Amino acid sequence: MSDISHHLNFGSMTPVIYFLMELDKLKNVQRQTQVSISKRRENSAEHSWHFAMAALSLAPYASQDVDIQRVVKMALLHDIVEIDAGDVLVYDLAARDAIHEVELAAAKRLFGMLPQPQSDDFMAYWLEYDAGESADARFAGMLDRLLPLLSSLYNNGESWMANGIYLEQVLQRNSIIGQENPELWQHLRQHLDNAKEKGWLK
Amino acid sequence: MSDISHHLNFGSMTPVIYFLMELDKLKNVQRQTQVSISKRRENSAEHSWHFAMAALSLAPYASQDVDIQRVVKMALLHDIVEIDAGDVLVYDLAARDAIHEVELAAAKRLFGMLPQPQSDDFMAYWLEYDAGESADARFAGMLDRLLPLLSSLYNNGESWMANGIYLEQVLQRNSIIGQENPELWQHLRQHLDNAKEKGWLK
Repeated sequence: MSDISHHLNFGSMTPVIYFLMELDKLKNVQRQTQVSISKRRENSAEHSWHFAMAALSLAPYASQDVDIQRVVKMALLHDIVEIDAGDVLVYDLAARDAIHEVELAAAKRLFGMLPQPQSDDFMAYWLEYDAGESADARFAGMLDRLLPLLSSLYNNGESWMANGIYLEQVLQRNSIIGQENPELWQHLRQHLDNAKEKGWLK
Repeated sequence: MSDISHHLNFGSMTPVIYFLMELDKLKNVQRQTQVSISKRRENSAEHSWHFAMAALSLAPYASQDVDIQRVVKMALLHDIVEIDAGDVLVYDLAARDAIHEVELAAAKRLFGMLPQPQSDDFMAYWLEYDAGESADARFAGMLDRLLPLLSSLYNNGESWMANGIYLEQVLQRNSIIGQENPELWQHLRQHLDNAKEKGWLK
């Protein structure tokens, strides 16, 4: 950080500018998913972009009660808490339970950097996504699960093998895809069965 | 790429899934901007997320004729052409002129992977952003210019020094910020003058 970074003045916009610079840290949070070709691990900022693009691109396959603009906003906001809380593997259920209070505190600190109405608005979106109950949150949750599965299929199952994942875990933890889009799930299941045959999944 | 990647079947969703996997490549396109702390160069996917977050966060400072949802969509789509065309330094005017036809061809190829209406819709957003004339495109353009300036100020001017950039170039190429938000520009100018005094800019 620069020696002037702590006293850069932007008048009334100062808190928002500080929030935007704080967001830079999400680019340093690593996930288990591999980026194709380069084979480095994906970070949560570029994942959030990919997730938002999935929402825009798969909009025609959402049910009519889904508002894609709201799903895009959830995608952009959903991982910001990882700046403080880090990324936890979707298959590590104990760690995911333990992290919840840490994520809530992170949401309060980070969204709390913003003035109103942004602060409460961003918090409300994050809580809605986290609860996973509304039509928008469910469609968003489906996309968030779908992308790592596609990446693993396209990258010879490397992140599955690195973490010793079982086919049964994948089917259980991603069942929301089947609830949201049975046709997509049917195709995925076939590819996942093939992945087990190839030894990518146990 | 996996040996099965070229024949993964997702029924009617297959073209969209292929498009989403193609988007992974934007995570490998490097920009001149530095990511803070890690000091690696930023890629265009994580930049696109940051840009979309800037749109959501700075929405209260947009004029009333700006539709933030459309700005967010432009932010998400604006750099996808770089999958084929690569990133060109904002201060390299000759290269930026030369790249335009390449970017247009890239937009046609990449957005052309999608079925309608997505294909034409994404192309229209990209063209609108590229033309930079509508209120939404101008607010988006302002944000796209703002973020690298903030990063350079927060990272001791490293990308400016690496590319031998002059203060006068920064003021000329980023004048859209002053047109869109005079108060923000006034603060930025002060920080840019300080940057020159420190030797970060020539």
